[in-house]
Amino acid sequence: MLIVGELINTSRKPIKEAIEREDAAYIRDIAVKQAQAGADYIDINCGTMVHNEPEIMAWLVNTVREAVDVPLCIDSPDPQVLETGLKLATRGRPMLNSITAEPDRFEAVLPIIKSFKAKVVALCMDNDGIPSTAEKRIEIVKKLVEDLTAAGVEKDDIYIDPLVKPLSTNDQAGLEVIEAVGFIRQAYPDVHIICGLSNVSFGLPNRRVLNQVFMVQLMTAGMDSYILDPLDREMMGFFHASRALLGKDPFCTGYLKAHRSGLYRRD
Amino acid sequence: MLIVGELINTSRKPIKEAIEREDAAYIRDIAVKQAQAGADYIDINCGTMVHNEPEIMAWLVNTVREAVDVPLCIDSPDPQVLETGLKLATRGRPMLNSITAEPDRFEAVLPIIKSFKAKVVALCMDNDGIPSTAEKRIEIVKKLVEDLTAAGVEKDDIYIDPLVKPLSTNDQAGLEVIEAVGFIRQAYPDVHIICGLSNVSFGLPNRRVLNQVFMVQLMTAGMDSYILDPLDREMMGFFHASRALLGKDPFCTGYLKAHRSGLYRRD
Repeated sequence: MLIVGELINTSRKPIKEAIEREDAAYIRDIAVKQAQAGADYIDINCGTMVHNEPEIMAWLVNTVREAVDVPLCIDSPDPQVLETGLKLATRGRPMLNSITAEPDRFEAVLPIIKSFKAKVVALCMDNDGIPSTAEKRIEIVKKLVEDLTAAGVEKDDIYIDPLVKPLSTNDQAGLEVIEAVGFIRQAYPDVHIICGLSNVSFGLPNRRVLNQVFMVQLMTAGMDSYILDPLDREMMGFFHASRALLGKDPFCTGYLKAHRSGLYRRD
Repeated sequence: MLIVGELINTSRKPIKEAIEREDAAYIRDIAVKQAQAGADYIDINCGTMVHNEPEIMAWLVNTVREAVDVPLCIDSPDPQVLETGLKLATRGRPMLNSITAEPDRFEAVLPIIKSFKAKVVALCMDNDGIPSTAEKRIEIVKKLVEDLTAAGVEKDDIYIDPLVKPLSTNDQAGLEVIEAVGFIRQAYPDVHIICGLSNVSFGLPNRRVLNQVFMVQLMTAGMDSYILDPLDREMMGFFHASRALLGKDPFCTGYLKAHRSGLYRRD
């Protein structure tokens, strides 16, 4: 089980504003809080800064690296930005988000994965976009796993992201992903499965509840990694409870530790 | 999806005390509140009243029947008490909790099911008690479904209860039930699967969180009916969110209705 802390993302207004005023202390604080709350990786995403994404990425990575020991997840659609971030992300084994089954992007990102020995998030999409049928989704997953392993990437370093669409525009969007996760877990027991949770609730009320419930459902289906807000105490509480109930927490030690740390106190 | 409201049970101290002072208004109030909160059935269980269970059952059924329109679930290990309750439970089609694969109990309860055309909760246990292996559990489920349908009970009237044991004494207890539910759903798509949730958390802290998460996990595996406290607003909120995310709520209508009713307000 792996948690990637999602908060350092320039699509979030407080992060964008902190960057604009070059407030390194604020960014460091968010990184430290996420690590303390249990993030195994800290995601760095400045994809909204279209005019100077490489410079911002470098500044963010340097800033965060000074503050925490946990490794970073360099998150960008742009191979040049991935490379810039990975060069500076020198703590532990970095993660890269993301490669896809789009031939151009696959060819551009593969050498970067290999050169930095990075773990990789592989998005379930190709030149036709995000699949809308289970069959197509399975076909893309097969292609990604086969092409990555053929190129020498270990299965244990692959994190398949089935890509989540909003339930508000398609009431089968949650089920589709849950079923895809079940398929991937069965077909490829050694690869990891990851996703961001919050897309599913876009456009609906009580988004936090939907995100929390979806996390539990995905873990039941076989997902083992999550891109989420580790400062959401309810989410983290459900995470530990869900692990324990799925028999993945010997003697419930992790759950009881989470309890003693006060995670379930509501005050 | 079906919810059986569990609160009228003499193992709960306020219910026992209300019975002792013959406080029909209190019992009626609990019944009405459960029905308003979405219970499809109201469970009536006075199994702790060993000296006068039939009399207490009759009084409870009469009391509740005056107060609510929803049908009742008559809950007792004693066939005589089941019969007493069912004779008086004249609103809608009653439910009976429970039959088992113990030959004596099966023979004693089967004629009662047929005579009252009752829906039936079938517990996954036989003369050897609650099974401790997946194989044995599956064997008992097969026997129950085959013997009941051979006797003329419709699959749609059978509610298999896999029986939940505490996670605190066996850290695989949750997973075992989740896997059993997956098996039953696949092997018998037309039978219902039900259970009480709270046993799983016995002996652990934050029981409500564990019960809520377990409900979501069981629904993901294929459970469609629950014996629970419908006055637990968080539980009911998770129930509606979980249904929607599993594609069982066209256009999220049920979820949005639950939202508009204020179910997700925390105040």
